[in-house]
Amino acid sequence: MTQPSSRRQVPRRIELIGLRTLPEVRPGEDIARLVWNAAQREGAGIETGDVVVLAQKIFSKAEGRIVRLQDVAPSALARTWARTLSADPRFVEVVLRESRRIIRMSERVLIVETRHGFVCANAGVDRSNVRTRGSVTCLPLDPDASAQKFVKRLKALSGVRVAAIISDTFGRPWRLGLANVAIGAAGFSVLEDLRGEKDASGHMLNATIVAVADELAAAAGLVMKKAAQVPVVIIRGVTLPAGRGRAQELIRPPSEDMFR
Amino acid sequence: MTQPSSRRQVPRRIELIGLRTLPEVRPGEDIARLVWNAAQREGAGIETGDVVVLAQKIFSKAEGRIVRLQDVAPSALARTWARTLSADPRFVEVVLRESRRIIRMSERVLIVETRHGFVCANAGVDRSNVRTRGSVTCLPLDPDASAQKFVKRLKALSGVRVAAIISDTFGRPWRLGLANVAIGAAGFSVLEDLRGEKDASGHMLNATIVAVADELAAAAGLVMKKAAQVPVVIIRGVTLPAGRGRAQELIRPPSEDMFR
Repeated sequence: MTQPSSRRQVPRRIELIGLRTLPEVRPGEDIARLVWNAAQREGAGIETGDVVVLAQKIFSKAEGRIVRLQDVAPSALARTWARTLSADPRFVEVVLRESRRIIRMSERVLIVETRHGFVCANAGVDRSNVRTRGSVTCLPLDPDASAQKFVKRLKALSGVRVAAIISDTFGRPWRLGLANVAIGAAGFSVLEDLRGEKDASGHMLNATIVAVADELAAAAGLVMKKAAQVPVVIIRGVTLPAGRGRAQELIRPPSEDMFR
Repeated sequence: MTQPSSRRQVPRRIELIGLRTLPEVRPGEDIARLVWNAAQREGAGIETGDVVVLAQKIFSKAEGRIVRLQDVAPSALARTWARTLSADPRFVEVVLRESRRIIRMSERVLIVETRHGFVCANAGVDRSNVRTRGSVTCLPLDPDASAQKFVKRLKALSGVRVAAIISDTFGRPWRLGLANVAIGAAGFSVLEDLRGEKDASGHMLNATIVAVADELAAAAGLVMKKAAQVPVVIIRGVTLPAGRGRAQELIRPPSEDMFR
């Protein structure tokens, strides 16, 4: 069981364990079974209370979210922007189809709001780690549902109750470099509200809501390097805020967002 | 020694160990000695190759970056914005003094560029975890120098060579909740460039520069909760990109930043 947060339950040690032997994922694959088997095979195991962080790419593949570029007819807008970006117009077309709003169009990058509401470059459409040349992957249609399904399936298979995060690497304004973030979550509250708690000096904390799901995803990113075939990381020993969270709750409402 | 990154050296397990027994830090304190002693006392130890993540607050205190609000005379601008924000005008005055540019002023928050170039709310000025009532802490003047000094002092004390990060919790556009990020760093490259490496499918990766320092800080944030008196986290088992990095290198040049 994931434990409710409390100042008295701060973990002393957290362990991050990367799984290296997940086989190539094909459409329709039972990811929970693949992950469970890999964890057993590698001697890590999966225990109740663990957080399992999974790279979005394996869900994109399992859910058939792969687009063959030869099947894509680019629109005039896609062709125009492809010239500006020096990109394949069919790739730009897929990005536009995955978007519900364009946030910034520059000569270097398209920053969009995905259909889920996440703001990122290229709507998460990606060429890397696709075995089929000339194909791209798109983000899962409903990553929260995918995470929830993973948790339920793993419970059914093994009796073990975990929390799950589906992650992708996103860029950020103001700071260089990508960081791994949560785009899907199940089994815990993605935000931890420390307001109303007193800090060590007895002052009330205010405006202290921590994006626990993103900190977990970033931690997993240390092990889950893109090139490294470590698509799954088990985080053991973390005290999670209780709740039935969804990564959707991490999206800042556009009306409160000063940077769109 | 921190090891250069390589696909063959992906760590299987990373451990995060929080230190709980650091004493209250006073101005002029030798933080390296306090941390070394706490790590010994708690049985964690510190080993060559570890990353030590330290909450900025302990450096702010050690470096005397504490301002008594009774000593602050607010400007007209500070008084005006304090009314809008329902804040103490002396607090707003300290924020303005710590800023070199205002990014957004709304009724809810001041987003500024600090003198170091970091973009965050309230310039990192903070009321929490200050024992002296009516005082606030400011970020260290040069967090990279503070991190470098920590690394050198720990080496001199103990012979152990670590990497260090000084961290603070910042909000982000588009996503709710705070995440711990690096504001100072020493002993490794803060950005890991995976461009030019091939991914598992043999494709070249492009635009894949990972903000390792921020992922390390976020991971530490899981243990280092504000209210919890865990101001130091040791990260053991991580393969760091070699280099003499500074957190300053994480700042996206304003000319390339579409969100200012």
